[in-house]
Amino acid sequence: MSKLLETVPNFSVSREKDPEVFQGLVDTANSVPGCTLFDVQSDGNHNRCVFTIVGSPAAIEEVAFRLTKKAMETIDMTKHTGQHPRMGATDVIPFIPTTEITLKECVELSHRVAKRIWEELGIPSFMYEDSASCEQRRNLAEVRKGQFEGMPEKLLKEEWAPDYGERKIHPTAGIIAIGARMPLIAFNINLDTSDVEIAKKIAKTIRGKNGGFKYCKAMGVMLEDRNIAQVSMNMVNFEGTPLYLVYEMVRSLADRYGVRIIGSELVGLTPAKALVDCAEFYLKLENFDCMNQVMEYHLI
Amino acid sequence: MSKLLETVPNFSVSREKDPEVFQGLVDTANSVPGCTLFDVQSDGNHNRCVFTIVGSPAAIEEVAFRLTKKAMETIDMTKHTGQHPRMGATDVIPFIPTTEITLKECVELSHRVAKRIWEELGIPSFMYEDSASCEQRRNLAEVRKGQFEGMPEKLLKEEWAPDYGERKIHPTAGIIAIGARMPLIAFNINLDTSDVEIAKKIAKTIRGKNGGFKYCKAMGVMLEDRNIAQVSMNMVNFEGTPLYLVYEMVRSLADRYGVRIIGSELVGLTPAKALVDCAEFYLKLENFDCMNQVMEYHLI
Repeated sequence: MSKLLETVPNFSVSREKDPEVFQGLVDTANSVPGCTLFDVQSDGNHNRCVFTIVGSPAAIEEVAFRLTKKAMETIDMTKHTGQHPRMGATDVIPFIPTTEITLKECVELSHRVAKRIWEELGIPSFMYEDSASCEQRRNLAEVRKGQFEGMPEKLLKEEWAPDYGERKIHPTAGIIAIGARMPLIAFNINLDTSDVEIAKKIAKTIRGKNGGFKYCKAMGVMLEDRNIAQVSMNMVNFEGTPLYLVYEMVRSLADRYGVRIIGSELVGLTPAKALVDCAEFYLKLENFDCMNQVMEYHLI
Repeated sequence: MSKLLETVPNFSVSREKDPEVFQGLVDTANSVPGCTLFDVQSDGNHNRCVFTIVGSPAAIEEVAFRLTKKAMETIDMTKHTGQHPRMGATDVIPFIPTTEITLKECVELSHRVAKRIWEELGIPSFMYEDSASCEQRRNLAEVRKGQFEGMPEKLLKEEWAPDYGERKIHPTAGIIAIGARMPLIAFNINLDTSDVEIAKKIAKTIRGKNGGFKYCKAMGVMLEDRNIAQVSMNMVNFEGTPLYLVYEMVRSLADRYGVRIIGSELVGLTPAKALVDCAEFYLKLENFDCMNQVMEYHLI
């Protein structure tokens, strides 16, 4: 079993608009031994791309730095347009624990990367999510408000000095949001009702913002094609707020409104542990040691 | 994601009784690139050891052959004593699917290995479990009956010609049982009763032998230290008979006898999929694609 983490850097360029620059980043991502580029998303309208890379801490640190350097050398933010909010050539670099590594270690790693990027490339950073220096900076939207064009002015405000670097952006690469966070799980629960108000009431009860589960974001939506209501959730820390806990709470609240759960869905990738934890709960497993007893952890 | 399988060969030697021969086998297991020896069990009383090796099909085929050769060169069955039944220096070689490989592919691989062992080493084999040529040979205990000492006579019986090789054992290495099977999961469910008869009745109802779930072996036992009864199971094919199915059946039967499930336990290693399947069942997941949506499968 090895220490592994994931980084999902976002760059202000797209395969559709600038294939050569895009390919240069892909090649850079593939240039570091010990990590694997296992997904690339690109959107021409957003003029933005997102890489998913998994590897050892040393490899991930190195690849994050090299990609930032490559993006600085090849992307000029003074000429960038696109629908998605952005403030830098490398716009955001999240680090996410995968196996045998804690969130705290990812936070430390994020600081080392931000420091090196400032010292060697002269690009400043805001530390966000679990790496944030204050509550206000946790939220990416808050940090990025003003975007590339508004940053020179924003950095001069008392409370918006960068965490690394001086109070001015890099002229062409801007400024980066860097931070560690738990993996995000998109989890939706479908109800046997066409009354979206029930889903909205349930969502309001279970989400952290309104006093529910701290690491659960939720809203009620209508699935028009199936004519059913859905509680749509982002689980931002499945260890703090496990999937089975929100499932059981939704079941109980649905019952209170006289409706039932039809099914649920996971969108995209999920760490095995989030699901194994559910098996452990429902099978009432005693003394179960996930990392040692689940065979696959011995293979990665 | 790569094709991976597991082999768990058993050898008639122990670290305790013959450390040099034992070490020779460990070194051989470590000599093949593309596979990893990740567990070794040795028992002096049984005078037997069990290796757990995971790797690519080509590597597993090679390591199974090399280990059999090494065991033949260093173990003399005419001098072997030990409490565990055995019939060969290499006594049994199971092949077990891990990821991206079917049981059928493991059956084919087991035949290739048995053929090579006969042709290059002159050691005959019985094919057992899912590789068996007839129902009678599926069961290892049945195949091994008579043990090393009784094999020369057994092989002369009409129905006991080896699947590979002639009707005589290798003079010092004996004969081997080779076959593919699904991973075995040891799964126990604890009841809030000290009446072991209830556990025994439940076990009898759920096990394949008596008309219950085909791939479930079960018995009722008493946990003396906790003064509770337990349904102790071996799940021999978790895809055919999933854990949640026997759990729900035991719950229903326990209720019929007026008792409840206190908890359950998994002994030893479990494939992630067996547990993810439980999460999928209890969360009522729709359209869930385990191999694509569980991140860890992308890392092995």
